[in-house]
Amino acid sequence: MIRHTVAFRLRHPKGSPAEAAFLADALVLAAIPGVTRFERLRQVSPKNEFDFGFSMEFADATAYQGYNEHPDHVAFVRDRWVPEIETFLEIDYVPL
Amino acid sequence: MIRHTVAFRLRHPKGSPAEAAFLADALVLAAIPGVTRFERLRQVSPKNEFDFGFSMEFADATAYQGYNEHPDHVAFVRDRWVPEIETFLEIDYVPL
Repeated sequence: MIRHTVAFRLRHPKGSPAEAAFLADALVLAAIPGVTRFERLRQVSPKNEFDFGFSMEFADATAYQGYNEHPDHVAFVRDRWVPEIETFLEIDYVPL
Repeated sequence: MIRHTVAFRLRHPKGSPAEAAFLADALVLAAIPGVTRFERLRQVSPKNEFDFGFSMEFADATAYQGYNEHPDHVAFVRDRWVPEIETFLEIDYVPL
């Protein structure tokens, strides 16, 4: 199991329609083959600069690669992630 | 539900007995009342500086506060975390 997470902050004002639209449209990622346990999360620690997070799990590296290369993921990164995200950090975990 | 996570890098050499001892002794945290779904994780993304992570869940802020103030947590932070951790980042999530 590989848990892929990304913590991020949007360029949009907090509580704005643009923020809500981004979070809603991100559900396209949950439908990509190989994605399990997809979660949209609010980041609540004051000890970092992020407001939200996504978390998802893959069975193995092949499934993760399939997600990365999937046209829906590529399009989301190009059309939504890059223009709308101010800062982010990817953290990926496997069981110890 | 509050998911408390911390990604970190140890001062110890990778694969060292000191590293193994830290990761083993951290299980004391899993036994603190209110802690659920405690996980010790290996961080595998090349896009950050961390080697490991812990993740745990609390039912609510009261349970989280109880963990933070518990003598076993306070002692672990003082005696193991502060001297043995080189860098870390806390990220806390709640469902969106």
